[in-house]
Amino acid sequence: MFYTDGKLQYPVRVERPNPQFARALQQAIGGVEGEIRVMMQYLFQGWGSRGPKKYRDMLINTGTEEIGHIEMLSTAVALNLEGAPLSFQEEAAADPMAGAVLGGMNLRHILSTGLAATPENCNGVPFNASHVYASGNIAADMYANVAAEATGRALATRLYNMTDDAGMKDMLSFLIARDTMHQQQWLAVIEELGGMQEQLPIPNSFPQEQEAQQFSYAYFGHRIDGQVPAGRWTEGASLDGKSQFKPMKSEPLGGEPMLAPPRPDGGAQTEQVMASSPAANDPLADGTPSVA
Amino acid sequence: MFYTDGKLQYPVRVERPNPQFARALQQAIGGVEGEIRVMMQYLFQGWGSRGPKKYRDMLINTGTEEIGHIEMLSTAVALNLEGAPLSFQEEAAADPMAGAVLGGMNLRHILSTGLAATPENCNGVPFNASHVYASGNIAADMYANVAAEATGRALATRLYNMTDDAGMKDMLSFLIARDTMHQQQWLAVIEELGGMQEQLPIPNSFPQEQEAQQFSYAYFGHRIDGQVPAGRWTEGASLDGKSQFKPMKSEPLGGEPMLAPPRPDGGAQTEQVMASSPAANDPLADGTPSVA
Amino acid sequence: MFYTDGKLQYPVRVERPNPQFARALQQAIGGVEGEIRVMMQYLFQGWGSRGPKKYRDMLINTGTEEIGHIEMLSTAVALNLEGAPLSFQEEAAADPMAGAVLGGMNLRHILSTGLAATPENCNGVPFNASHVYASGNIAADMYANVAAEATGRALATRLYNMTDDAGMKDMLSFLIARDTMHQQQWLAVIEELGGMQEQLPIPNSFPQEQEAQQFSYAYFGHRIDGQVPAGRWTEGASLDGKSQFKPMKSEPLGGEPMLAPPRPDGGAQTEQVMASSPAANDPLADGTPSVA
Amino acid sequence: MFYTDGKLQYPVRVERPNPQFARALQQAIGGVEGEIRVMMQYLFQGWGSRGPKKYRDMLINTGTEEIGHIEMLSTAVALNLEGAPLSFQEEAAADPMAGAVLGGMNLRHILSTGLAATPENCNGVPFNASHVYASGNIAADMYANVAAEATGRALATRLYNMTDDAGMKDMLSFLIARDTMHQQQWLAVIEELGGMQEQLPIPNSFPQEQEAQQFSYAYFGHRIDGQVPAGRWTEGASLDGKSQFKPMKSEPLGGEPMLAPPRPDGGAQTEQVMASSPAANDPLADGTPSVA
Amino acid sequence: MFYTDGKLQYPVRVERPNPQFARALQQAIGGVEGEIRVMMQYLFQGWGSRGPKKYRDMLINTGTEEIGHIEMLSTAVALNLEGAPLSFQEEAAADPMAGAVLGGMNLRHILSTGLAATPENCNGVPFNASHVYASGNIAADMYANVAAEATGRALATRLYNMTDDAGMKDMLSFLIARDTMHQQQWLAVIEELGGMQEQLPIPNSFPQEQEAQQFSYAYFGHRIDGQVPAGRWTEGASLDGKSQFKPMKSEPLGGEPMLAPPRPDGGAQTEQVMASSPAANDPLADGTPSVA
Amino acid sequence: MFYTDGKLQYPVRVERPNPQFARALQQAIGGVEGEIRVMMQYLFQGWGSRGPKKYRDMLINTGTEEIGHIEMLSTAVALNLEGAPLSFQEEAAADPMAGAVLGGMNLRHILSTGLAATPENCNGVPFNASHVYASGNIAADMYANVAAEATGRALATRLYNMTDDAGMKDMLSFLIARDTMHQQQWLAVIEELGGMQEQLPIPNSFPQEQEAQQFSYAYFGHRIDGQVPAGRWTEGASLDGKSQFKPMKSEPLGGEPMLAPPRPDGGAQTEQVMASSPAANDPLADGTPSVA
Repeated sequence: MFYTDGKLQYPVRVERPNPQFARALQQAIGGVEGEIRVMMQYLFQGWGSRGPKKYRDMLINTGTEEIGHIEMLSTAVALNLEGAPLSFQEEAAADPMAGAVLGGMNLRHILSTGLAATPENCNGVPFNASHVYASGNIAADMYANVAAEATGRALATRLYNMTDDAGMKDMLSFLIARDTMHQQQWLAVIEELGGMQEQLPIPNSFPQEQEAQQFSYAYFGHRIDGQVPAGRWTEGASLDGKSQFKPMKSEPLGGEPMLAPPRPDGGAQTEQVMASSPAANDPLADGTPSVA
Repeated sequence: MFYTDGKLQYPVRVERPNPQFARALQQAIGGVEGEIRVMMQYLFQGWGSRGPKKYRDMLINTGTEEIGHIEMLSTAVALNLEGAPLSFQEEAAADPMAGAVLGGMNLRHILSTGLAATPENCNGVPFNASHVYASGNIAADMYANVAAEATGRALATRLYNMTDDAGMKDMLSFLIARDTMHQQQWLAVIEELGGMQEQLPIPNSFPQEQEAQQFSYAYFGHRIDGQVPAGRWTEGASLDGKSQFKPMKSEPLGGEPMLAPPRPDGGAQTEQVMASSPAANDPLADGTPSVA
Repeated sequence: MFYTDGKLQYPVRVERPNPQFARALQQAIGGVEGEIRVMMQYLFQGWGSRGPKKYRDMLINTGTEEIGHIEMLSTAVALNLEGAPLSFQEEAAADPMAGAVLGGMNLRHILSTGLAATPENCNGVPFNASHVYASGNIAADMYANVAAEATGRALATRLYNMTDDAGMKDMLSFLIARDTMHQQQWLAVIEELGGMQEQLPIPNSFPQEQEAQQFSYAYFGHRIDGQVPAGRWTEGASLDGKSQFKPMKSEPLGGEPMLAPPRPDGGAQTEQVMASSPAANDPLADGTPSVA
Repeated sequence: MFYTDGKLQYPVRVERPNPQFARALQQAIGGVEGEIRVMMQYLFQGWGSRGPKKYRDMLINTGTEEIGHIEMLSTAVALNLEGAPLSFQEEAAADPMAGAVLGGMNLRHILSTGLAATPENCNGVPFNASHVYASGNIAADMYANVAAEATGRALATRLYNMTDDAGMKDMLSFLIARDTMHQQQWLAVIEELGGMQEQLPIPNSFPQEQEAQQFSYAYFGHRIDGQVPAGRWTEGASLDGKSQFKPMKSEPLGGEPMLAPPRPDGGAQTEQVMASSPAANDPLADGTPSVA
Repeated sequence: MFYTDGKLQYPVRVERPNPQFARALQQAIGGVEGEIRVMMQYLFQGWGSRGPKKYRDMLINTGTEEIGHIEMLSTAVALNLEGAPLSFQEEAAADPMAGAVLGGMNLRHILSTGLAATPENCNGVPFNASHVYASGNIAADMYANVAAEATGRALATRLYNMTDDAGMKDMLSFLIARDTMHQQQWLAVIEELGGMQEQLPIPNSFPQEQEAQQFSYAYFGHRIDGQVPAGRWTEGASLDGKSQFKPMKSEPLGGEPMLAPPRPDGGAQTEQVMASSPAANDPLADGTPSVA
Repeated sequence: MFYTDGKLQYPVRVERPNPQFARALQQAIGGVEGEIRVMMQYLFQGWGSRGPKKYRDMLINTGTEEIGHIEMLSTAVALNLEGAPLSFQEEAAADPMAGAVLGGMNLRHILSTGLAATPENCNGVPFNASHVYASGNIAADMYANVAAEATGRALATRLYNMTDDAGMKDMLSFLIARDTMHQQQWLAVIEELGGMQEQLPIPNSFPQEQEAQQFSYAYFGHRIDGQVPAGRWTEGASLDGKSQFKPMKSEPLGGEPMLAPPRPDGGAQTEQVMASSPAANDPLADGTPSVA
């Protein structure tokens, strides 16, 4: 259950409203690197958490922080929209470049919200909750969270560099700092659980003898000249300490697939049904659907 | 530029076709943890790669491998659909539970594809390319890739456990092994670039003195009872070696936001425009849009 | 800024887990009538609220309640998934209807989340934030909220009737009661602002003399037999007290549109460009693009 | 079954084509407040209508009107695109601000349609039919329709204010008038059915004694300072005449949820499976999955 | 402008309601091969039609027919849902296979619509209007329409074969016939315009001397063994009569791309910025961004 | 299985980077007429191909070519973004029209990718794999492919005309040529299979005597004045040589539909349940759900 105090986690100040920067800020709200995503990701990970309760508590706690980040950014969008032109004629009056400001805005900021934020990205694409990763595997989730915070901090620094509004820079300096911490936080869980040696491969509960281990630490080359791009991933001990990296030229281990012919009542063309006779297509002798 | 040989990277064999397992396998094709996603993610990362060329080559190379994984899984879906019922009446004839098999199928496997795979997940939701993370930051991308392969391997092991078809288990044992390697591979890049100490926080090119550093290594507590869930993230050296973790009770540093009243021609209700006079709402004295 | 206490707003109890009911419950989480939608809708309405501050406070307050409803339902989904079959073989062992339970599940509950909720609807379609209505017009928003709570309560009563699990019925009886209140709450705002007579038409700030008033209170008939379906909407005083309803047979007031021919370099077929000469198409004489 | 006469319901005239206004108009076609949505919403409500036939007839009749509104707006978009620049070089010739007009356009108007409308919103996001509300409950549907027409009229007035083209203002004055009527129309159905006292709570067919009635008319406060935002929703008779509003501080009635540990073969990390022993996590004594 | 008569274009009769067939029928309403798509596609093509007016009239006319097809199918869905189980307990009472029918249903048919159709496909994925092709090029549009009607008729025949309900077979026999005609109709436009020789390549208004004509009639082989799959596409006159088909082994005509290094303030890792010095990466000498 | 050589199929050169043209080029990558779509469409058609193996080989071969087209266009986008402004202040310094360039960009090119391509269209809408048509019917697929290449070539010529950059024109002249060939290629398959006479109607395996043949070659008129738009589709032999086209005024063959009343526990309003008594609504006498 949740509570609020109606206040902002950190001050949000705009010195010179810029409706195009309002559009840019939307990426931090509803973009795939944004705050709605991490808010929902951490909360759903917490709500579905199985195993040690401490992780549930930590996840819901940080998910709760992120709701307040959406609040800050929504406020920043609204403040950047103060004084935005609502019509082509007023924009033309203020500025001979009629259309340059309106043209660069998310027009839904005028038409749909009356100068307020939307749960969309900088192109007006609405947030889609398929981006909420909550896998039931704590290590996979932690890496998904690191990825979210790493792309999120890259986004926040790009927004920081895009503006010279002191208020906006101040707000972003806070959000960037929080992203720094959150990257650390999720990696700290991996460390607490034993680090890469214990946690890899993810999931570590699957018996590795059931995987095709001859391919588990090989970097496959798919260059037609047979060269294999080399690096740390082609030599040295694997990061889980269980094997050695090696390069391997990829060769097809399977043959050419051959599917059974379509049924006459399956909506194909007659020519597909007829031409698919055994003589014409050399299907597998025993009729078992299989490809090797 | 790309080439093919028409063969499968690894044999695909189905002993007893199961059209419901065909539906499950779709998650590995078009799900967010699936192969279309990593194929496009690695290729787009490679095509947009700026900086050392070796990473471009490595990414495109592995992206090329992933195309073949989609091919394997699409073949597996088609083979699992061989012999699927096309009508309620034939299902009823074979089995008194009319509708139980058809009901559990992705009906598009019959209606839209004629017993073949689609670029959709196990619920028939089409793949959406917003899941392709290619941030222009190599460390962020590597963690996004680890997350994809960690959730991808969790998915593959769940599919492995879901079936007892020896052919399918064999195919999945190969894909699981490749996911093991790919988790390693992306983390090896982080190590090659200096490991967490060099690479964190991401992006490491942003001067940390510009972030609000007092909050950069603090875990914020948002519990109303003031408790802060403790763990590795609240004590000890930070993973980048630059500071110490600490717990901190989150307190609002900003005030209550107050937006300017709507313009009379902005599509609000008159009561919003009128009631928003300074006396009624105590806006900030100087009229500057700001919230602190 | 937001806080939590880690507890549930109301007890969530499942007596006999039913993984298919878990799928049904998803509609109340990520469906268009569900809790993610109202949570985000009320919060975004509050964060963008312009005008009297009391509505901002009320909206954020209720949006905060809704976060806890998602928490309750996510818990209910997870509990209904306890003991769900993870494979076809174990299902077959327990029950001769192999595939009947698995077939009716959201397979992502197994494959993607490890038996936990997702931010999706009952068909596995992820929540899309375009459903968050926050128009900047308080009366429009209130009606959008009533619509959300009316369809939401219809959904909750259908879920209530679908199950005979006493725990689930108890939880739903609470959510149904809250939907009762929330329907009232949004309509109470309309009443507080003067009721339909003051608030209609929405937005009431647009001068009605600028609309084509001869059509403002007429119900148009589009039946080819000229009949006009009659009811309260064709007779009596309008609900805003400003006019009388009347039926009106719809007749075309405009002519047939004629667009200018395509430019030769605009990607059309040559036959379109040529055939569009004035003689062939009878464009308007003065070349002004217009249709009347 | 449907018919047409090839004419426009109301004249569509553009005096000075403005390709950026064409983009704005798209919101009224394919936006969530737009005409495709109401067209499909009223038709699907009508086609699925159960109960008195008069509502079916009325809904299909008005849905038929809305098809013609899409036609008008599509014509308006095409006319606003007449003469739009097709290339950067011609724009630069006409105007030193190369890119300002093209930059503010929906480029699909050039690249995909050859200067014609698309079923998309003002940001180019395609219409998504999940916005079609047809709940099978007539009162819920009527409020959904009021919400659509209220946000739709707000949109239309914003478009009206955005342009000073006399032709466009004339067309919009008609659409605004129709939105006025349609708001009335749906509320008239509620009145005809007995008004709020009879119709609330929706659905009124669910026995209220089955809901947790102690919470049915209480406004919950979630402020950490215990304050409850007051208004009409915290005092006075409820709008259905069945109770009194009251404020209530929200307190958690449920405990902390505890889910069962993951199965060893469920794709979690081993540490989740092991640490989830009863001693470590204090699960409920009887093993029944439940949270209270 | 549009009209209705409230009647069905063709009788819709269901002898034995089948709620799972109701799910299947949804593909013909909201699937990509379905009626909403063609309705909107033909109407938008007509509304944006530039060039000879006869095509506009024909398109709108047939688009108007398609609205009635959605009406027929929506009625068929509702009739197939009559008597569907609303709860697990009643299903269990009727049939020991509790969950087999409900499990195979689109649960939104119960939860969201009260036993009526939705604008979704057979998996419950809502129709997305990006499938509306209206390119401004009449030949491209005609082929898009043929594709829609060809996949649409394949779908309708599969539905026909899936059911043995005489009423449903009768309705589908009508829709199949209409798809037969509509395939013919769009190809007849191509013929009327001069057939493939005149219409290809599409758009035929682009001067072919501006394309790289040495590649315009060559089938490229991308097999690593150099073989080129042969057929009508590798020999004989091209279908536009302008050239001869020929096979050609695809060889890379361009070199390896090298992008400029990231800017230091662009959010990349420092190692990308630094390592991108000319010495390290061998960028193009003159610094011009280009790849050849 | 797939291979690469790291080189471009054709040179990609940009003389004067134009970040707004980068946005336009995105349509050719992730638009519905773009290369991701055809790449996936041809590969999925090939992987699911049933019937003569030669089509499978041809499809996979051309799908492999298309991967390289995405690579070329992604490179072109990145090169057009070289030197793009990253902030409002630098843009203002270079040009007094602050915001005109940034405003017309896809801001994700800065914020999300660090100046590289995304799998999105020109409006930033991510590619959605529902556009991958692979019907299991080879003739339907061929027409879907022609439609893709026809709209794709229209797009490419519009991009060609939009720019005067010689490098971009050169690259596009190659892609346009390939689209010319690919239109031919898919039509050549139709010819090889016997042409329209053999292949129509699609699917040709469905016995035409099962369709309502009196309507199979009739063009229906839906004009209220009874006129039927005439053309090749209303007279002459049908294109499959099996019948004659004829015009036919559309008349309703079915009656007005009447659905059964809602169940009392189905979530409707009580007034719907009660008013639906036989007397009030005149349902069909025998209670059989049917509409004729």
